[in-house]
Amino acid sequence: MKIKFLWPGRTKSQELRLLQEDYLGRIGRLAACRLVETREARGIPERHRERILEVEAQGLEKHLTDDYIISLFDQGKEMASEEFVRFLEKNGSSARPLTFMAGGFLGLAERLIRRSPTLLSLSKMTYSHELARVVLLEQVYRALTTLKGKRYAK
Amino acid sequence: MKIKFLWPGRTKSQELRLLQEDYLGRIGRLAACRLVETREARGIPERHRERILEVEAQGLEKHLTDDYIISLFDQGKEMASEEFVRFLEKNGSSARPLTFMAGGFLGLAERLIRRSPTLLSLSKMTYSHELARVVLLEQVYRALTTLKGKRYAK
Repeated sequence: MKIKFLWPGRTKSQELRLLQEDYLGRIGRLAACRLVETREARGIPERHRERILEVEAQGLEKHLTDDYIISLFDQGKEMASEEFVRFLEKNGSSARPLTFMAGGFLGLAERLIRRSPTLLSLSKMTYSHELARVVLLEQVYRALTTLKGKRYAK
Repeated sequence: MKIKFLWPGRTKSQELRLLQEDYLGRIGRLAACRLVETREARGIPERHRERILEVEAQGLEKHLTDDYIISLFDQGKEMASEEFVRFLEKNGSSARPLTFMAGGFLGLAERLIRRSPTLLSLSKMTYSHELARVVLLEQVYRALTTLKGKRYAK
């Protein structure tokens, strides 16, 4: 299974970045995995929402080829952990990379949402975009431990 | 508003503990808030599930008086962030403390679940119990910033 994580900008919270690195290391022991932190829109006032999303979409698109895209989206589908395991098993068996894409603090541009065959919501609650990254990584790690029959320290 | 967080044992992941402290500090600037880390069952083999839950339940119960209890429970109710804000507003206005209770890695004893007027599920997905604590704190902080009309850095 090839797994890619794609999001604009480096995670700024130091603690969340450490957790991110920890989960990436653990995932990397169970599957081919990489993280690409793409260009982040900087210095554009927040009221220019569309411009920020456009700059970040262009950065993300450079790293998408024939990937199977799963985008984090608050109106996406919620899956229970077991359902998420089956989803990874079903869609991660080909050579095509599974790419988890997450937006910056304004989310993802509309056309990236439309391009994603799977839209995943982690919760009915809204998480900060950096916390959402860590929750996503934990879920992917948890699912892989189940798939590989490993015990996951709760 | 008086908010209490109650769970057995100290959060072991250093990064999650730092995030926990950070959110507690931020929440404490918006409401009276404290965390009580109660007795954790130690040295009992995991197969003795009921004994572990019983030891931890007794520790938690010592800190419950007339509190309004909201327990984290995977079969509980999911709330969108806006709904959670309204919930806090409605239930946090009296002198009665709002107590968020979370279990250890095996969850909470049945009788604590039955005693809780509100059972809250953070997600359809299962989170590690330490990550769930941080997600809960982030949501409480987020809700308070909305109630207090502050801007929350996404």
